[in-house]
Amino acid sequence: MITRTEIENAAERIAERVRITPIVHLETGIWGLDGHILLKLELLQHTGSFKPRGAFNRILSHTVPDSGVIAASGGNHGLAVAYAAQQLGCRAEIFVPESCPAVKVEKLRYYGADVHSIGSVYAEALIASEARAAETGALVVHAYDQPEVVAGQGTLGRELMLQVPKLDTILIAVGGGGLIAGVAAWFSGTARVIGIEPEHAPSLATALKAGEPVDVDVSGVAVDSLGARRVGHLAYSIARHYVDRVILVNDEAIRQAQRILWRDLRLIAEPGGATAISALLGGYYRPSPGERIGVVVCGGNADLGYFV
Amino acid sequence: MITRTEIENAAERIAERVRITPIVHLETGIWGLDGHILLKLELLQHTGSFKPRGAFNRILSHTVPDSGVIAASGGNHGLAVAYAAQQLGCRAEIFVPESCPAVKVEKLRYYGADVHSIGSVYAEALIASEARAAETGALVVHAYDQPEVVAGQGTLGRELMLQVPKLDTILIAVGGGGLIAGVAAWFSGTARVIGIEPEHAPSLATALKAGEPVDVDVSGVAVDSLGARRVGHLAYSIARHYVDRVILVNDEAIRQAQRILWRDLRLIAEPGGATAISALLGGYYRPSPGERIGVVVCGGNADLGYFV
Repeated sequence: MITRTEIENAAERIAERVRITPIVHLETGIWGLDGHILLKLELLQHTGSFKPRGAFNRILSHTVPDSGVIAASGGNHGLAVAYAAQQLGCRAEIFVPESCPAVKVEKLRYYGADVHSIGSVYAEALIASEARAAETGALVVHAYDQPEVVAGQGTLGRELMLQVPKLDTILIAVGGGGLIAGVAAWFSGTARVIGIEPEHAPSLATALKAGEPVDVDVSGVAVDSLGARRVGHLAYSIARHYVDRVILVNDEAIRQAQRILWRDLRLIAEPGGATAISALLGGYYRPSPGERIGVVVCGGNADLGYFV
Repeated sequence: MITRTEIENAAERIAERVRITPIVHLETGIWGLDGHILLKLELLQHTGSFKPRGAFNRILSHTVPDSGVIAASGGNHGLAVAYAAQQLGCRAEIFVPESCPAVKVEKLRYYGADVHSIGSVYAEALIASEARAAETGALVVHAYDQPEVVAGQGTLGRELMLQVPKLDTILIAVGGGGLIAGVAAWFSGTARVIGIEPEHAPSLATALKAGEPVDVDVSGVAVDSLGARRVGHLAYSIARHYVDRVILVNDEAIRQAQRILWRDLRLIAEPGGATAISALLGGYYRPSPGERIGVVVCGGNADLGYFV
């Protein structure tokens, strides 16, 4: 379990390194919905997602060896680890599968990382990164299943509560579960934390049903950021206490949410970043009159080609 | 001249109709700059620019005739008038030149406007709109040179001051001058308000030099939103008292600013929306250590094709 104190400590540790991301309050009746809806614009965070919160907290909680930090991810986690290492002046090795698009590899290199393209799928890159870490002693930064990572992501919950003290409900997209676990640990039942998962990547919903984290098949439009095959043990143990429920949304709802965020707010969200709001826009979650709902827009690393 | 009281009244009048747009505080030392820089994210306003502030204030200050409201603009002003009329349940006729791209005409129609494509250039559409207004008695909403419009845009200054009480400097892009006039009237010398103009659309800089509004040639990447040929009389008379100075930036600086806002903040700004920050990014304005600088990102109606 992660405590509020651990999240407070994380917030202090990373305060100079992450942005306080803004809130936008939406107008009454927008999209024909009841309730007062506000968006937490975490897509304005460094590297375009919430991931630096956890990465900085993990790295700053340790003495980093000369061999630096290491992670396996061609996505938002990899970017965050590369960026954090660059800012802290330490080395970063990032392992990605050979299928990782050149543009993502370039971006990792832009943040100063040594990128290793190994294996045909993510699992092979992960195994290679673990072997390399064992060899060099580099500090491993996991994408979600480490206490410092979860506490770091939990700072988003703390920040949101300071910005908007009386929320009834918080909607958060779920991949490996690091973000929702941190936020749910922060609120610890004082607000209704609801997980939103793509129906083609139901790692938390399936774990809660099975009574433990289990492997699921993942696919669909948000698979690049929410496609963890198995929810973290930490996330599972926090979610079963403090996540009110999980709602599954379909890919069309996610795509529609991306289009509506651009049309009505000039926000570019990636599929995973639009997944939480898609629960409202797609009619999966119907707010009550007067309900105060915070929705986390957690990532903006979208393929702009989709919007053109 | 526009008084603070007029702007207060405007703010009350439009409060239910416009968004309070968020602020994001950037980290110390970002882009190698001194000072504390914060962005006013006005691109999240309805229709993607600040223009609804003035449009709503103009319309709500009058009894709208059955013939509705009328404006000439295929750009942000036209969108704002169409949107405001739709929200207020009145008719909107928008005149655009035949060269207006189909996508802009569609968007005007999406907001419920009757669109008239007339003439080969904007001036012809304007003349046609004036003839039509004389015929129907519709309420004319000018893009910048009406007191209610300037007072409405001034609510952005008031809002910014409430959000960040102690600003030293505010950077604002200038087209016809409505926004900078409203904001400068609000601050009335209590903060340094600096206008940023594309060197190919120097309407305010030229007017201040000439001692009166004069016609200028306009072109360049931001011409669609900042390409007024002549600054408003109201804007001129306010600016000569309360605008500290005008800085001219080149098109490459504006394009670079668009790219950097996307790279580092996942914000899509149109050229006119990136013009104010380009003064910092292009080295035209160098903040002092400790200086608190608010930069208005005033529009997000960008051609996404540029970013792909």
